[in-house]
Amino acid sequence: MIECCLQINFVKDRGLQEQLREALVTAILAGRFIQDEALPSCRSLSEQLRISRNTVALVYEGLCADGYLISKPRSGYYIAPQYDPEQMKAEKPVELPPESQDHAPNWDKLFKKSPSHLPTINKPSNWMKYKYPFIYGQPDTTLFPMEQWREAARKITGSMRNHHWLHDLIDQDAPILLTQLRNHVLPKRGIIADDSEILITLGTQNALSLISQLLFHRQTPIGVESPVYLEAVNAFRLQNAPIIPHQVDQEGLVLGSQSRQCRYFYVTPSHQAPTGVSMSNARRKQLFEQAIEHDQIIIEDDFDSDTNIEQRSKPALKAHDRSGRVIYVSSLSKALAPGLRLGYIVAPTELIDELRSLRRLTYRHPPSYIQYQMAYFLSQGYYETFLNHYRENSAYRWGLLKHALDKHLPQCRYINTKATAFWVEAPQEVNTQHLAWRAAHQGVLIEPGINHFLEPSAPNNFFRLGFHAIAPDKIESGIITLAQALEQEIANHRNQ
Amino acid sequence: MIECCLQINFVKDRGLQEQLREALVTAILAGRFIQDEALPSCRSLSEQLRISRNTVALVYEGLCADGYLISKPRSGYYIAPQYDPEQMKAEKPVELPPESQDHAPNWDKLFKKSPSHLPTINKPSNWMKYKYPFIYGQPDTTLFPMEQWREAARKITGSMRNHHWLHDLIDQDAPILLTQLRNHVLPKRGIIADDSEILITLGTQNALSLISQLLFHRQTPIGVESPVYLEAVNAFRLQNAPIIPHQVDQEGLVLGSQSRQCRYFYVTPSHQAPTGVSMSNARRKQLFEQAIEHDQIIIEDDFDSDTNIEQRSKPALKAHDRSGRVIYVSSLSKALAPGLRLGYIVAPTELIDELRSLRRLTYRHPPSYIQYQMAYFLSQGYYETFLNHYRENSAYRWGLLKHALDKHLPQCRYINTKATAFWVEAPQEVNTQHLAWRAAHQGVLIEPGINHFLEPSAPNNFFRLGFHAIAPDKIESGIITLAQALEQEIANHRNQ
Repeated sequence: MIECCLQINFVKDRGLQEQLREALVTAILAGRFIQDEALPSCRSLSEQLRISRNTVALVYEGLCADGYLISKPRSGYYIAPQYDPEQMKAEKPVELPPESQDHAPNWDKLFKKSPSHLPTINKPSNWMKYKYPFIYGQPDTTLFPMEQWREAARKITGSMRNHHWLHDLIDQDAPILLTQLRNHVLPKRGIIADDSEILITLGTQNALSLISQLLFHRQTPIGVESPVYLEAVNAFRLQNAPIIPHQVDQEGLVLGSQSRQCRYFYVTPSHQAPTGVSMSNARRKQLFEQAIEHDQIIIEDDFDSDTNIEQRSKPALKAHDRSGRVIYVSSLSKALAPGLRLGYIVAPTELIDELRSLRRLTYRHPPSYIQYQMAYFLSQGYYETFLNHYRENSAYRWGLLKHALDKHLPQCRYINTKATAFWVEAPQEVNTQHLAWRAAHQGVLIEPGINHFLEPSAPNNFFRLGFHAIAPDKIESGIITLAQALEQEIANHRNQ
Repeated sequence: MIECCLQINFVKDRGLQEQLREALVTAILAGRFIQDEALPSCRSLSEQLRISRNTVALVYEGLCADGYLISKPRSGYYIAPQYDPEQMKAEKPVELPPESQDHAPNWDKLFKKSPSHLPTINKPSNWMKYKYPFIYGQPDTTLFPMEQWREAARKITGSMRNHHWLHDLIDQDAPILLTQLRNHVLPKRGIIADDSEILITLGTQNALSLISQLLFHRQTPIGVESPVYLEAVNAFRLQNAPIIPHQVDQEGLVLGSQSRQCRYFYVTPSHQAPTGVSMSNARRKQLFEQAIEHDQIIIEDDFDSDTNIEQRSKPALKAHDRSGRVIYVSSLSKALAPGLRLGYIVAPTELIDELRSLRRLTYRHPPSYIQYQMAYFLSQGYYETFLNHYRENSAYRWGLLKHALDKHLPQCRYINTKATAFWVEAPQEVNTQHLAWRAAHQGVLIEPGINHFLEPSAPNNFFRLGFHAIAPDKIESGIITLAQALEQEIANHRNQ
């Protein structure tokens, strides 16, 4: 019998059988058992690992059923012949010239693009460990309707169903998801579209990337807001498109003399990212008129329309689009669970057809498993119910943060919008990058604003406060701590 | 009370509650109920739809719980105020200049790329309706381990778990999936890699697309096999890379005088796509020597290594790669369920880092929901068990098809490989595009070979037979029907 050297540090949030099975499978596939020796008996393994004998027996039986082990009466469990280390050994490698003759390729010279050199918003990947993470873009996952999502998973994997989601759809999308979008999601934004005008994407970033790859190059100047959602601009820059920044005021993007030369506009009219300003009707009209006059295309990123806390949102720009010069992009997963990566583009059929071909060559289609599951989720009304809960919860958090800002950070100004974050202006002498650093040491994460601006002479005293990743009962104490950091920063500045 | 006009054509493979709830949610969100009128009673709706009263009551209760309906004692069910059509109406649209002043953009002129113009392999999207679909790339979905997959879904959505998969991972991957790849999947191919050398992708197509976007342009000639996996070449062409076709013989890709000028090679050494030829050791050695001498990079597409029916596969080229000049790409979903879209790249850290930044800008990361579910699936040994069943089943199908070919199509030749499809040569006078058309009319789908060749003077008499989408008991009769179509085609040709 093999002296079993299985050491398992059982964790609490996973079942014992699951963990034992994983450890045994790992050991078998690593070739740690040989064919002629019995595995430890249920009794000895259960004693060694201090788990019940039944747990071990069930796992052993499962591994027999799946062909990993065989059971010999009155002798015990053995690994199946095909998992004998000798059997699993690969053929001998090809003999190659001595290593000295080869040297590593110079990758830097081979790169035709440098995506890693583009400026980006750095968020600590361990943000969950901070006490006061006022970061943007990570929703409160306790709001996720897990029970309904689990039901959706159970249904689409149900034995009576037709499992369309297993197949390669090549360049198609799940028809039932398109139906749900057409019937339940787009009408709320005032948009009427048929299936041929919709393309499912892996979220908004992917929508913008596909559009950029198809339409942009050195000679397509793109008008954007500044401050801006930087990852969109990065996607455009990857295609070498010239970026024409436009100021943002209380009514949204301000057109200027430089606007005429743009071939495209990228805008976030519902609530501007990152300032939260909602584009006024007058500005919407101006933008349209300018686009019609100069034959420009408008890319509308409607990222927060579903989730902002306003009772009645303005319709999308796309709702006014009679000639098909608005490319509309939005997300289904941003508020629900960004890890799901699901969004869509609405645009004229000609453009969607070409984007569909491009998508086929870049990744075929978004996983149909998630498309079908999301379609079920929408069809049962769970998505709408979630959005209502989310909005209520957002409004509550928004109120807490607004109250805390007014009370504890009176020296800071912010635009009073009903968006999903606060864009805050600190006193002019404050460098919010320094503030962010100082605050982080006290457990408070904020996002310095400077990276959102495109102008070289951008102000240094803005920052963004998200309010979804932080626990509501931490909001006020977080702002008090931030206020202390701000005082220290100001005092420090005066002493310099 | 509203005279209910709900018409539901109940289908058998979905529950009644699910279908009724969907219909009611659709009607509510479409604004078809008004606030002051009661919905039909449970009794009247159940009679109208001929379903049990209990079913209606349960659905009504569920809709109350989720805020769609309210129940008034002794009066009935009403829609909640927020779903009143008046409440749901969007603001009035902005007034725009009269339509006549605007005209649709000329999209054709705006496209910077023409992905839809690249030649591709056309497979009828309704292939499931054909009796004898000898198509390639759609697995037999009855082999999918649905019970285990359902278990994986249940586990990762379990209430005790930490639901990492809900978050935006920005540019990261699920660590537990990387661990599984490192420990269970790559060693079988002779590959040792650490986490920083692995990038998860949305399948092989996505891996090739990311590599192309980062490394290729007009001045990077790429050596490829011909016949070839055309969608790979299409991804390269999208970056304007010159394609240098290389002949394939019984030992794989044949190097020639044109090989030296290539900067990259794209090869399928395990079994060449589409011919199925396994690259010999001598050729592997030659390819490496050439790459080392001329500082070329090898892209190894190991698409069928896990699923071909050989007892012992040759190790991957990557297993011999000491200096990091092999970029290895493979899939986790091709045989299991291509709709899942999951693959990976193994390459030097420098390259992976840059690809990771590029991936962040093109779609952030593959859905973490699927990554975590697949990691669970791998950790319990289900993937390996599936592959074993799949291989056994493939071998059985392979044998049936080989037998049928030998018996009923003796006039056709094929290379005897243990690959996942047969590459068949018809008599020289046969145009297999005509044959495919004729066969399709008799319910037989085959893939003409011409589109796989890159040379303008390519032979017209090849075709591919896949054997996974067709039911095993249909294989022989499918080949008999194909043989009849072939006879007709030959007769037709002689009469011309």
